[in-house]
Formats: sequence, C-alpha cells, structure tokens
Amino acid sequence: MERKYSVFIFNVASCSDRYCSAYGRDFSMEEMFDRVKSIPLLSAVDLVMNQQFLADKPGILRNLQRTGLKVASVATDTFANPLYQQGSLTSIDPGVRAQAIADAKAAMDFAAEVNSNIMTLWLGQDGYDYLFQADYLREHRLLADALAELCDYRREINVTLEYKIKEPRTHCYVSTVGSTLLLCREVGADNLGVALDYGHAALGYESPAEAVAMCKLHGDKLMHIHINDNYRLWDDDMIVGSVHTLEYLEFLYWLRRTGYAGYMTLDQFPFREDGRNAVAESAQWLDYLESLVDQADFQEIESVLAQKDAVESSRLMRRLLRGRPEAITVR
Amino acid sequence: MERKYSVFIFNVASCSDRYCSAYGRDFSMEEMFDRVKSIPLLSAVDLVMNQQFLADKPGILRNLQRTGLKVASVATDTFANPLYQQGSLTSIDPGVRAQAIADAKAAMDFAAEVNSNIMTLWLGQDGYDYLFQADYLREHRLLADALAELCDYRREINVTLEYKIKEPRTHCYVSTVGSTLLLCREVGADNLGVALDYGHAALGYESPAEAVAMCKLHGDKLMHIHINDNYRLWDDDMIVGSVHTLEYLEFLYWLRRTGYAGYMTLDQFPFREDGRNAVAESAQWLDYLESLVDQADFQEIESVLAQKDAVESSRLMRRLLRGRPEAITVR
Amino acid sequence: MERKYSVFIFNVASCSDRYCSAYGRDFSMEEMFDRVKSIPLLSAVDLVMNQQFLADKPGILRNLQRTGLKVASVATDTFANPLYQQGSLTSIDPGVRAQAIADAKAAMDFAAEVNSNIMTLWLGQDGYDYLFQADYLREHRLLADALAELCDYRREINVTLEYKIKEPRTHCYVSTVGSTLLLCREVGADNLGVALDYGHAALGYESPAEAVAMCKLHGDKLMHIHINDNYRLWDDDMIVGSVHTLEYLEFLYWLRRTGYAGYMTLDQFPFREDGRNAVAESAQWLDYLESLVDQADFQEIESVLAQKDAVESSRLMRRLLRGRPEAITVR
Amino acid sequence: MERKYSVFIFNVASCSDRYCSAYGRDFSMEEMFDRVKSIPLLSAVDLVMNQQFLADKPGILRNLQRTGLKVASVATDTFANPLYQQGSLTSIDPGVRAQAIADAKAAMDFAAEVNSNIMTLWLGQDGYDYLFQADYLREHRLLADALAELCDYRREINVTLEYKIKEPRTHCYVSTVGSTLLLCREVGADNLGVALDYGHAALGYESPAEAVAMCKLHGDKLMHIHINDNYRLWDDDMIVGSVHTLEYLEFLYWLRRTGYAGYMTLDQFPFREDGRNAVAESAQWLDYLESLVDQADFQEIESVLAQKDAVESSRLMRRLLRGRPEAITVR
Repeated sequence: MERKYSVFIFNVASCSDRYCSAYGRDFSMEEMFDRVKSIPLLSAVDLVMNQQFLADKPGILRNLQRTGLKVASVATDTFANPLYQQGSLTSIDPGVRAQAIADAKAAMDFAAEVNSNIMTLWLGQDGYDYLFQADYLREHRLLADALAELCDYRREINVTLEYKIKEPRTHCYVSTVGSTLLLCREVGADNLGVALDYGHAALGYESPAEAVAMCKLHGDKLMHIHINDNYRLWDDDMIVGSVHTLEYLEFLYWLRRTGYAGYMTLDQFPFREDGRNAVAESAQWLDYLESLVDQADFQEIESVLAQKDAVESSRLMRRLLRGRPEAITVR
Repeated sequence: MERKYSVFIFNVASCSDRYCSAYGRDFSMEEMFDRVKSIPLLSAVDLVMNQQFLADKPGILRNLQRTGLKVASVATDTFANPLYQQGSLTSIDPGVRAQAIADAKAAMDFAAEVNSNIMTLWLGQDGYDYLFQADYLREHRLLADALAELCDYRREINVTLEYKIKEPRTHCYVSTVGSTLLLCREVGADNLGVALDYGHAALGYESPAEAVAMCKLHGDKLMHIHINDNYRLWDDDMIVGSVHTLEYLEFLYWLRRTGYAGYMTLDQFPFREDGRNAVAESAQWLDYLESLVDQADFQEIESVLAQKDAVESSRLMRRLLRGRPEAITVR
Repeated sequence: MERKYSVFIFNVASCSDRYCSAYGRDFSMEEMFDRVKSIPLLSAVDLVMNQQFLADKPGILRNLQRTGLKVASVATDTFANPLYQQGSLTSIDPGVRAQAIADAKAAMDFAAEVNSNIMTLWLGQDGYDYLFQADYLREHRLLADALAELCDYRREINVTLEYKIKEPRTHCYVSTVGSTLLLCREVGADNLGVALDYGHAALGYESPAEAVAMCKLHGDKLMHIHINDNYRLWDDDMIVGSVHTLEYLEFLYWLRRTGYAGYMTLDQFPFREDGRNAVAESAQWLDYLESLVDQADFQEIESVLAQKDAVESSRLMRRLLRGRPEAITVR
Repeated sequence: MERKYSVFIFNVASCSDRYCSAYGRDFSMEEMFDRVKSIPLLSAVDLVMNQQFLADKPGILRNLQRTGLKVASVATDTFANPLYQQGSLTSIDPGVRAQAIADAKAAMDFAAEVNSNIMTLWLGQDGYDYLFQADYLREHRLLADALAELCDYRREINVTLEYKIKEPRTHCYVSTVGSTLLLCREVGADNLGVALDYGHAALGYESPAEAVAMCKLHGDKLMHIHINDNYRLWDDDMIVGSVHTLEYLEFLYWLRRTGYAGYMTLDQFPFREDGRNAVAESAQWLDYLESLVDQADFQEIESVLAQKDAVESSRLMRRLLRGRPEAITVR
C-alpha cells in the first residue's frame, strides 16, 4: 500500500523540556526543510503557525517549492503562545478568544494557500489544572461555538481536533475519542473531524484501533493521524515502534479496513537524539510494520475477529508478526 | 439539602476477589435488608437481578415492605452471570444477546413494580481483553441497537448506562463520559442516560465534577449516581471520602448547580471490613462532605470559577474545607 | 538455549473474579496434571499449597510420578486463605502469624520432598488498603523477622519473594525490586531471594530487564521467574507476548547475560479462555521470542548498549525483531 | 510544632514547559529573594547551582545576608545543564562524569559556606528512555562509585538522594524509596540519605507516610523533604493540599512520629500562576494541615493503627479532618 508519510517539521530540530531549555542547537528553517527532505519515505511536512513561521511565510513557500515537499496539515499555535496559557478558543477573556479564532482562520487560509485541506487544532491549553478552577459549562459552550465559527469560515478546509487527556494542562477539554466525536456531533459541521494521535489514544487507555473504528462509525470523522510511541502513562513521543509492536499492527489493519487515505504524520520529541535520525527511524519502523500488514490475509483477520476467541487472536498475532519472511524487503 | 442515600444491597454482605473466594460469611436476603435498615441516613437500596434475587422476588417485595426501604434502581446482571462472559448486549451469539435483552427488560419490569424509574446497566463484560479480539464496528452497532430496543420497551423507565474504562474486561465499550454521551446521542431516546460512578470517573482520569457538567450540557443526561473512593488507578471501591476530600466538594457543588435530585448510591467492596459498618462510614463521610457544601456561599464559588485563577481556587478550597465550624453538627 | 518452562497448575483450570465466581467448570487435580502434560514445551509445574492441595498430598505425588512433570516451585498459600486477609507473616495477631510461618515451613518441607529447592512467597495480603490503617514500622519489622526464621529453617531451600505493588491490597509491603532487594539485605540470608514476575515488574513501571540486572548486582538474588503480559496499569495476567514484544527481547537478553538458569513459570489468569490452550499459547510465544534472542549477536548488543544512543537501540531492535528468517523454525 | 518551611527559589519566578518557553517574565535574583522574603511562614530557601547562580555567588551571599533567609539545601544542577543529558554521575563519558562529580563537590562546598549541611542530588537525567539503550549493570555501578566518592569528600555534608521514577527520562535509576535505601546500604556512608519529595512518592504509587517509616527503619535516612501535590500519575508539582488532604495528615503524623526535624521545602511549578502567590498558598495549606495534626491525640492514632481495622481508620480520619474547631486560628 502507498506510504504517505509526513512529519511535524520541528521534529527534526531540537527540543526543550521544563528543566532543560536546549538539548541541542538551533536550526534555521532552511536546515529543517533540508533535513526532512533527506529522510527516505517522507513526502510531506506538517507546519505549525508559531512565531517563527508567522514571521516568514515567504520563506516557507520558498522552501516548499525548493524541496518539493507537500503540506499534510497546517496547525494553529494554541499551545506555545503564552497568550493562550489559560485557554484559546475557550478563553474567558473575549479579546484573547477572538485572537485565537483569528489565528485559526489564518491557519485555514494558509492551509488553502499551500494546497492542504487540513487545519490541525490541538487545544492543549484549553482545560484546567486545579479543582474549582473552571466553569465547565461555560467553557464547553465557548468551545463548541468557536468550532462552529471556524467550520463556517471555510467549508473546504477540514478543522481536525487532536484530542489528548492531559498536558500541558492537567486536564484538557478535548480529551478522548468519545468526547471529541460528541463535540463533532454537537457542532454538526461536515468539515469538523478528528486528528487521531496514536500516542494520545494510548495515553488515554484507548485501543487506537478501536478509536479508528469509532471515528468510522460516528460519521467517518477520521481526518488526520499523528504517530509516535509511549509507555502508555505519558505522552512520551518516542520513536514509532520502539515500545509496542502488535498494537500498531491492529491499528494499521483498522486504518486500511476503514479506508483511511490521508497522511501518517510522525510527531515525536527526540530530546536526546539527533532529530533527523530519530524521525528516519520512525519512518523505517512504520514502513516495516506496514510491510507486515501488507502480507496479511484480511479474510483471515476478519474470520478471527468474528470468533471473539483470544487464543485465536494470539495465534493470529504470532503469524502476523512472523510475516512471510521471504516477502520482506530489508531496507 | 435533603440526603437521598441508597446502597447496593450486596455491599453490606461479604466480598470475594480473584484469589480469595470468601472474605466473610454468607448473609441471607433478610439479614442484608436488616443491615441496610440499621444504617443511619440510608433510605433506599439498589437491587441487582442476579441468580439469588431472581430466585426469590416475593422475598424481595416482603423485605422491602417490612423495612420500608425504597428502591433507588434495579440493575440487570450482565457481569456475574457467566453466560455473558464474552458480552451481553454486544454478544456475537444471537441467543446470548437475546437473553441479555430479555433480562434487561425483566429488570425494567421489576423496577416499575417496585416504583423505581431507574434500570442500571453496567456492561462490564461487553468489550475485549486482547488485541485483534473484537470486530469493533460490529459490536458497537450491536450495542446501539440493543439500547434502542430497551428504551423503546418501556418509555417510563430510564435505562442508565454506567460507564467504566476497564474491569472485568481489560477494555470496556461503555468507557468514558464522552463515549457514553455519544452513545446516548446515537440512540436518541429520552429515557437513555448516564449512571455516573464517581470512582469510575476518577479511574478514567476524569474530573467527576466536569463529567456532571458534560451530562448537563449534552441533554441533561445524568440520571443516577454511584459513589465510592479510590486511588485513581483502579476501581478500588473504598469507603467514600477515605482518600479524597476536595474533589468530592467540587463534585457535590456541581450536582447541586446542575439540579441533580436523584439518589446517591453507595457502591463499594468492603473486602476485609464488616460490610455494614463500612457502608455506615461512607454515609457519615458523605453527610459530612455535604454539610461543608451546605455551608458554602454559591455566589462566592461562581465568582471564583469566573476568574480562572488557581490561587483563588486554592483559597476557596481552604475556606470550604474549614467550613463555618460553629455550623457543623458532630454526629 | 534450553527451554525450562513451567506453569502454575491452576492456570489450566478455571478462573473467577470479584464479580463472577465461575467463568468455567471445575477441574480435578488429575485433569489439571493431564492438561499440563499435554502442552508442548512444558516440563514442570509450580504448586500452591492451598486447601485443595493440602487435602491430597498423596494425590500430588501420584500425579507427578504418573506424568513425569518436575516441580519448579512450591508456593505457600498466603493469599487465598481468608485467615490471612489482614496479613500473614506481618499479621498483628500472633496466632495468625505463627500459622503463616508454619504453613510456609510446610511448603519448604514439601518442596524438598518433591525435589524443588524453591519456595515461592507472594505476600499479596500483607500490606494495607487505607490511610492510617497500618503501623508501618511494626509490620515491616514483623516481615523481616519472619523471613529470617523461614530462611533459618531449611538452608537448602530458597525462600523467594514475589513482589507486586498492589492487589489484592491497594498497597503491598513487598512492592518493588528495590524494596525487595533491600529486604534481602536486611535479612542477610543466602537462601532469601527474588521471584521476579514480569507482569508485576511492568505494573510497577519497572523495566523487567533492569530489574534482572539489579538482582544480579545486589547479591545475585534472582531465583525464580513468573511470566505473563499486561497493559502496564494492572496485573492483567494475559498470554505471554500478546501485548508487548521488544520488552520481552530485552528481558530475555538480560536473563542470559546474567546467567539465569532456573525455570520460566507461566502465570496467567485465562478468565474467558480455555486454560490449557491459553497456556499453550504462552509457551509458543515465549519459545518464539527466545528463538529471536537465540539468533542475536550478543557482541553487537553489548556494543549498542555501550553507546547509549537511542537511534542505535531502535535499529538494533528492528534487526532483532526481524531475526534471521531462514533460521526460524515455524511450529 | 515549629514550622521550618523553605522553598526552591526559582519557584517564585516563571516556568516553561516543552511547548511554551516562557509562561511569565524573567526575574532577577534580587527580585526572587525579595519575593520569598515577602511570604509568611517561610524562613529559608533551597538553591540550585545552575548557570545563573554559579555566575554570581557573591550576589547570592549578599541577598542571603540582606533578607536574613537561611539555606535549607544546595542542589547541584544535574538536570538543566545539557552536558548531562545522557547522565551525570552515571555518564559513560569519563569527562562528563568527572565534571558532574566536580559540580556536586562544589555544591557541597557552597552548602558548607552558607551553613547548610544538605546537598540535594536529583539525578533526573541518569537513566534511560528506550529499551536496549543502557547497560544497567555498568551504570548502576558507576552511580554507587560516584556517591561513595562524594560522601567521602566532606563527611559533614549530607548527600541526599531525591528519587523519582521518571521524568525527564522515561526511566530514572534513583526511582523509588526502596531502590534509594538499597543504594544507601550499598554505599554505606553515614552522610548519604534520602530527600523525599512527597509528589515523587505519590507518583510512584507509594504512600508517602510508609516511605517515611521505611527511611526510619533502614538507618534513619530521611534527611530532607520536598512537598507539593499531584494527581498521582505525573509529577504535576501543584500547590500543596490542592488535591489531597488526608494523605498529608498521615504523612505529617509519621514525620513527627519518626522525629523528622529538618526543613519542609516547597517545590512546585506554578506555570500559569503568579509564583509568589502560589508558593504562599502552599505555605498556608501546609500550616493548616499541620494545625490539624497539632490538634491530634497521638495515643489515639497509635491505638487505631494497632487495630488494623479500616472502619476505625476512617472514623479517625474524619475526626482529624474536623479538628477541634475552637482551636484553629484562621489566618
């Protein structure tokens, strides 16, 4: 099956955390594009409209043209801008909320300009940390209203909600696949959907594969995918496939079964690694895991799922993992 | 405010776990009713239509009349009956699923007979344990269809979904407040709603208070409440208030603000305690925590929530906890 | 490498949990032995000296002789016997504690009788559930004293501590690899060591492989191994290899590197599966995972570990997983 | 009882996280000291020897003298300096490790200079993120050897190990109270002990109170305390008492029972709050919680602990929480 892999462009640069402000050196925009371009299997980037990128849109366009990379999605920056530290679309300050809506519309405009139909909306600062800190009724309503306004702004651009149960807030409003699909129903716009981050699903104790099926069932709402790995208790944003194996196979199977045809965007935080090489590893792993699914017999899988017998499931997984060795191309 | 406290009748008897089949002795139905009756603050019971109860409906009616206890809800047994070990309403075996639907209808009938309008549906066996074990699309559809049939059966009885993210399955379908409200929307019946278990919400890393607000927002769907305490990583089903304090205050505040007027049902597993005394403790704690909310100034709380300032929230909580000491009646 | 696989004999029978008292039918001791015997790759059993087994020691000896199965270890029952619900070796009731010590000595005697040098001690009931429930100082001392007495009783039998952070208590005293090795130091007996349960280590957010290394470093204390799989947040006791893959490879590598030569005991709870078949699956998985380690180049692994470079680790894992396909024997 | 409260001086300034590099403005060293000084109940600071502080030791001394604040401890910076991103005392690069040891000795020297006998060692970067990334045997040995060297360097300065199970690494070597006390035993120096961070203990699913008791039992090793609150699944570093209540009471009780006489150091990350006010809140909470323990009857507590009866524990906690209202001074 065709591999459509993208990466958040900042992943190939350096990271910081709450203790250490710079694990590595700074990278220019040009270097970042070059590094992405140099990675086998990647054909696109996801952009974040943060300060650095807003300051140089012409530079982005020039680098896109120069490298031939496509744009998988454009994210509005609701998480790095300190203006939104108490919420963006749900801010109780009308001026801050209006700015957040304006930023998101600008991201939709830019997505259109670079031929992407996906605007990514990760509302990491919209939520609360403390008990008795938020008027939940009011803020949930502000959220739905803002989404309706965005979806109405440009019907040809999909507004995709990336859910995550926590971090940077201890509790985020757009938290689980269920609450996100509920919000989609509430708003009722065709161009509102889900950006499913594999690691966020795992963090929320979801089966990423079941989350894919739920998106299918409730309006075919899966519009974008982020992928990385973690130990299930925090969004560790590690190299794809470095912790889990079989769970990816189930996830990839359900993506195919439900007809997902969009990009798979690598989204990780290589704090102590060379960003380019860590991203390249993720692409290699994903390609390897997909090659195992390529070799699978889908009728056999459906037949096992129809039995609901864990012993048969276990046998199936061992067969899938082993693959048909002669068919694997070693890269 | 009026205290309407109930308890799952089995809570005053003995428990088992997967290692030890009997921490305490057996109790007759009469003894269980007597023990509930002896606990201050309780005025009702929740019943589970399991083998023991199905075998002696006249006995239940006689004990209800004898003790004057009301019935807060009637639960259908989808979790203790081994017939449903691979699912009840979602069973892929048509005969098993038909039986589960019939059982649930019988519980609705019995609820009507004992003047309760609540049927509790906790689908603990409906889900999966292993990867590649379930056809998620198919089983989610079976679930929605069965719920529609139940709601249609008796419109005056509320079918209340008790969500829980895991146990006894490693993954349950009715898992979070978001997925449950989504299911309510999908089915679209007025008599389908949520039975919110405080401990299940905490286990799923929800704020129980936010869950209450979400039920209000999405169709006023909060129909029943179970209460107990845990360490947030497992459904420990401990004495109410034995671990958390402030989180209950926020929960109780939001129940009042959203106008919840139903029962609070104690639902715990006192493995190593005398069941009667452990339940009495929960009632005492709940009453104490409610007394702190009784003393609160709701305008002051709303004013703090409108500021979204954690320092103000912290000050408020200290004031709430301290109460107006002169107003507390020591029991 | 030689496979020395055993299984807790009850794993091939039926399970219960706190809701459902019987997922399957009862099995006689003879049937259980037959079922173990029928599983390829198994050559031994682990026994638990619970009521059923205590009642028929001659039956055990007869079945051992009949089937030719060895005994990997004998466990004393400190978890299913309701007498120990508030603690066995740490019970504050002197009579209960004396009985627990006597039971453990009897298990050591029986181990000697059946030519095993391992007594397994899983102190699941020794701990506490609630805040302000236990005098930690007193009970930790009772624990160390009892262990010293047991180790002194028969020097040729190893007393192996199986740690687990929780369940059935919400907090258990013998909780992590660190606290267990600390206890071994405190007691200072050569025949006191660790029974490392892979799933318990994962539940405590340990790397099972690091736990193996720590046992080596602190007195070569790894004396027994239990193996199963889980989702890392609860002791799900699932089929080996059904969730994780790479983590087993690292675990198996460190077992070989540190020279572990004992049994690998399968220890799972196949609630909804046929016990025999679920155990057979675990044995197949374990054999497959070991076959991948068989093919590994240990010098290459050491060279990667010496670099502390996650990208190299990732590449190594992909190579290990792929194996040398021509060398794998499909069973 | 005397309140000896300190705070990590950076807590009154601004925070960053991995997304947002500056939630608030920069503060000069002088401002930070002034802000600490302005907070009721605080009498000391904990210092971190990071770049900013190393650059201006005379400034520190001047500010200490000016404000009259004591120094509770001096921490060496092993977590913010990117040099140590792959480990400090366990670095496999001999030059990096030598520098980390030199830095720690310099922190010990500075502690002596400012009349503190506590050097805090939080080894957040010493550990690993990925499977197959570390030679556990080698790095655990490097750790013990470095600690021995530090303890030997100045016997009158206590080297205190602050354990934490994860973050910034996904797995840290100094992880739990058990593994830390084991390490203390291994090294065997009188001036090596534990800096117990309440939030880290909770994150590792420990009872902080049991951890205090274990430190007492295994050599009276509790030498320093950090305090903050969290939701138990991550080191949220929130205002003390903003989530839990009863658990602090048990912790404070055990501190008194075991005779802890050192400082309680507030250690939090007020990302979205004014740092000074958030710290002031923690001090107010801690003082309030201590006032409840002040009112407790210790014989009554011991008598409850001796019964191991959760119902009695529950009643005790309700009594403790209620306090003797007439005795509480409202601040």
